[in-house]
Amino acid sequence: MADPAFQDYYPPEQAVCYGCGRLNPDGLHIQSRWDGDESVAWFTPEPYHTALPGYVYGGLLAALVDCHGTGTASAAAYKAEGRPMGSEPVLRYVTAALRVDYLKPTPLGVPLEVRGRVTEIKGRKVVVEETLSVNGEICARGRVVAVQMPATMLSE
Amino acid sequence: MADPAFQDYYPPEQAVCYGCGRLNPDGLHIQSRWDGDESVAWFTPEPYHTALPGYVYGGLLAALVDCHGTGTASAAAYKAEGRPMGSEPVLRYVTAALRVDYLKPTPLGVPLEVRGRVTEIKGRKVVVEETLSVNGEICARGRVVAVQMPATMLSE
Repeated sequence: MADPAFQDYYPPEQAVCYGCGRLNPDGLHIQSRWDGDESVAWFTPEPYHTALPGYVYGGLLAALVDCHGTGTASAAAYKAEGRPMGSEPVLRYVTAALRVDYLKPTPLGVPLEVRGRVTEIKGRKVVVEETLSVNGEICARGRVVAVQMPATMLSE
Repeated sequence: MADPAFQDYYPPEQAVCYGCGRLNPDGLHIQSRWDGDESVAWFTPEPYHTALPGYVYGGLLAALVDCHGTGTASAAAYKAEGRPMGSEPVLRYVTAALRVDYLKPTPLGVPLEVRGRVTEIKGRKVVVEETLSVNGEICARGRVVAVQMPATMLSE
């Protein structure tokens, strides 16, 4: 059994995200975990996640960067406070800015490795730099500026 | 009947993109058209395209920016050459860099308007600046650096 993912600790009402919500039956179920000081997520795109024949759709890669980034931000914020994930108050992040640089076409049909590294954590903001690799070769780089979720987005 | 969208002119082997390929049965079928000097696409997310209850998933917004950007790049390149879309040789673009700034939560359940404006067109590169709006209110801004598709990505 794998350890719980960051997203497994999201409260139910915050676990419906199409990208990473465990309670979204139609979603991608992206799962992120620590691997030393970095975070890692593995994801194998479906055959229909294509851009051109044989290559992964760039919008899916952006989705992976997005959810892995906010998940990493949440985990890093708990770590910075010395608290276990899932403890109260909840630290949940949303994306303020997303950037993806597509370095080379990403082959379809093989597992993608998404790695994140926190480069800034200050106040309500966490910056995560990411790589997307296939068989150890970096196909894209990403960057997420995550901010703690505004209370107005929380369901009552 | 609406005029054909930019993506309707893509050759069949280049029309399988999850975001905008008319031949991808599982895809989003994003369609972009000119509206004066700007390009526009309308898209109503599905209920499962959620981030948090009531709001659209940011990864979907990134996908819209992505495909609307490359579609606009293609249309702009044909226009710059004074040729109709669909004429040979094909001008098809892929994304080199994608950026999305999420300005406010985007409400789910209503049509999103994606607008693009070409800010640079030079050689094999086209830059498209975009807005995503709901009821006239901008929820996100995007930017795509599109480059003409490398021959190595073309199917034989």
